[in-house]
Amino acid sequence: MQQFEYFTDDDVRKIHEATLRVLETVGVDFGYVPAVEVFKKAGFKVEGERVFFSPKMVMEQVAKAPSEYTLQARNPEKNVVIGGDNIAYIPCYGPPFVCDLDRGRRESTLEDFTNFVKLSYASKSMDITGGMMAEPNDIPHERRNAEMMYASMRYSDRPFMGGAIGAEAARETIEMAAILFGCSEAELADKMPMISILCTLTPLAYDDRMLSAIMEYAKAGMPQLISSLSIAGATSPEGTPVVFSGSSSAAAMRYGTLSVGAPEMAVNTAATAQMARFYGIPSRGGGAITDSKLPDAQAGMESMMSQLMATLSGVHFVLHSAGILEGYMAASYEKFILDDEICGMCKRIKRGETADPEKLALDVIAQVGPGGEYLTHMHTFQNFRKAFYTPIMEQKEAYAGWNEKGGESIEKVANRKWKEILEAYQEPAMPDEALGELEKYIEKKYGR
Amino acid sequence: MQQFEYFTDDDVRKIHEATLRVLETVGVDFGYVPAVEVFKKAGFKVEGERVFFSPKMVMEQVAKAPSEYTLQARNPEKNVVIGGDNIAYIPCYGPPFVCDLDRGRRESTLEDFTNFVKLSYASKSMDITGGMMAEPNDIPHERRNAEMMYASMRYSDRPFMGGAIGAEAARETIEMAAILFGCSEAELADKMPMISILCTLTPLAYDDRMLSAIMEYAKAGMPQLISSLSIAGATSPEGTPVVFSGSSSAAAMRYGTLSVGAPEMAVNTAATAQMARFYGIPSRGGGAITDSKLPDAQAGMESMMSQLMATLSGVHFVLHSAGILEGYMAASYEKFILDDEICGMCKRIKRGETADPEKLALDVIAQVGPGGEYLTHMHTFQNFRKAFYTPIMEQKEAYAGWNEKGGESIEKVANRKWKEILEAYQEPAMPDEALGELEKYIEKKYGR
Repeated sequence: MQQFEYFTDDDVRKIHEATLRVLETVGVDFGYVPAVEVFKKAGFKVEGERVFFSPKMVMEQVAKAPSEYTLQARNPEKNVVIGGDNIAYIPCYGPPFVCDLDRGRRESTLEDFTNFVKLSYASKSMDITGGMMAEPNDIPHERRNAEMMYASMRYSDRPFMGGAIGAEAARETIEMAAILFGCSEAELADKMPMISILCTLTPLAYDDRMLSAIMEYAKAGMPQLISSLSIAGATSPEGTPVVFSGSSSAAAMRYGTLSVGAPEMAVNTAATAQMARFYGIPSRGGGAITDSKLPDAQAGMESMMSQLMATLSGVHFVLHSAGILEGYMAASYEKFILDDEICGMCKRIKRGETADPEKLALDVIAQVGPGGEYLTHMHTFQNFRKAFYTPIMEQKEAYAGWNEKGGESIEKVANRKWKEILEAYQEPAMPDEALGELEKYIEKKYGR
Repeated sequence: MQQFEYFTDDDVRKIHEATLRVLETVGVDFGYVPAVEVFKKAGFKVEGERVFFSPKMVMEQVAKAPSEYTLQARNPEKNVVIGGDNIAYIPCYGPPFVCDLDRGRRESTLEDFTNFVKLSYASKSMDITGGMMAEPNDIPHERRNAEMMYASMRYSDRPFMGGAIGAEAARETIEMAAILFGCSEAELADKMPMISILCTLTPLAYDDRMLSAIMEYAKAGMPQLISSLSIAGATSPEGTPVVFSGSSSAAAMRYGTLSVGAPEMAVNTAATAQMARFYGIPSRGGGAITDSKLPDAQAGMESMMSQLMATLSGVHFVLHSAGILEGYMAASYEKFILDDEICGMCKRIKRGETADPEKLALDVIAQVGPGGEYLTHMHTFQNFRKAFYTPIMEQKEAYAGWNEKGGESIEKVANRKWKEILEAYQEPAMPDEALGELEKYIEKKYGR
């Protein structure tokens, strides 16, 4: 598949020039002294918390960020390449609420988080275990990061997302990862088994919690998603792998709320991908996101819009690829499965098609001839399984058959499906040692 | 917005060459003697019903088809350009069943058809009144086309779709259109107020009903959607406006049924658009189509996938843009409204963005500065209405407010919406004369 270029090259250049102008003349506030010190030492113009970036300095730093790198999973078959022609899907991130058709909407717990780790592990389309897929509200604040990291490391063998709130969570995540891999932190920097997301305060500012985490991860050589070009190559040590991360959307002006299901979100996703390509940095954007409160038709259409746009535009890292409802406020079990279907369809599209002789099948066309049929032809049998996408939830039969079986909506099917997956779940093998060490680490720090 | 090119130029060329090869060596069956005669007379190689096309002859005919033309509405403000950088959305076509949340699924009637004409008239995103949006099962077979044309001409002032089953329906449609416009059939050929869809029998064949209608419309100079290149420029008189019409999809192999919600459908849509561009002929593809039996999340995701792909790929004519359920078998009132939302979102994306100084707003960024806010800035007030898409069904507020108001799913909102629209509907003005003449025409032909 070729990549979709929404904007003209001329538009990209104009946006780039406007960005440089803002960085040089308006500047960015950094609310964390050690970060400001880094800029001073590097010769940037600084006034109090505000840092100004000359175009030359910006472009020098941008050039140092790698365009492609690999996250190493504890199962090497599940390594994930960030950048190039690859795309990675990552589940929901950050919702304080969780819901399902049986129990309704409620505050999420560690059990919910663990369940989402298991669903992500079982998915054919998720590439990285999510970060805070559901906030573990039943666990004391200070212990939450450790418990989530433990679940991510134990119940899945994919690369995972590191804690993102402050330097301490970052440090903890790095230490636990070193235990998991039984290696030194220097060796961990070569593996890069995780990636973390650090957010700006728009417009044009960063707070101490995020900056301290950014610096902690950067020191350890861990890749990060950072929400604005201004910081991408500049506040991290040289060459730290970063992702150019855009999640900008429109406000629902009538309510003054965020609208992640707006078509402007899809436009921004295409723009983010294109600007990141211009800078040669991997990009983040999109996701199966919606403003809907239910796993209904609105959720389906908005999620597909954003996920497909990210996929076609050449985004590399798609956070929120499964589970989100209410514009990031709730994670839904049924929506997780519905989005997994969306992701499977989008990856099928992304796989592309080539016009090679086997696919053009001129000999078969000649054999079947006008008025014939292909359904029983050997060529069909030999190819359909790999050529066609196989849905997770078969809802393809005709009305009569579907109605006889109870006429279920897709939400009901999804409800059955996630329970089946959790029931069939089997823990991936892991050395007892590492597991024991991780448990000891948490116990020592936070008690039993 | 730039157009999405899914395939490489090399793939397009290979597909083109394979097509020419099939047309030349395998040929196409035409089950209608007058059509075969046209080919014979034009010097094509013919064996019985089968016609063979030399590459040179194909390309000569293709070159005669216009790349852009205008359908004239009886309200000139609603003229529709087919081709170029334009996109036209057209509602569902062909379902024998209709459904809504109140009355469930049933055989459709003329009242349903008329309601869909009214909903299409009221829509901001539909450009052309649909063809057989719901089969009028309560009307005798022979009278159905006339009644549908009457409703299309009376209850909307947009261009419309002509009857497509056989030469007689084509002739009748042309005669009624001439009455509507109070003009001769020769003058009608300049106006082109309608477009019709004629289908092939895949693979590589056409039957007499379709061919006779094609020839009837072509004689009258009316534009047509024709489902395969093989016939696009070849069975119509020279220069007849056509649309390169692709609606190919995958089979759901487990059931042996058509699957219009498959991702392969989206791939085919992108391919159709690209091949049509290669030939310089407007294209048809996509639509808000789904295999789902309900207006649920599956319907939302599949419909958005296909509609967005058509929109990004540069398709010109998107049939089935509103209402379809069950892979063309049923038209749904709620789905019509849901799809109208999808269409509005897709048209917003298609509108594009430019990086002009007013949009980059460097002065505003400098005024607001780091850590400021834009919500109360004059620039926001001056721009958000035209910049942001306004949803038909506002479901953007936060959970608490939405829940207090009853916590409705989007299907329920759509149910309320279509009733409101039909209640508020007002007939567009039309000369009493034309209306009377149309009624007389039908009465004379079929009785009261």
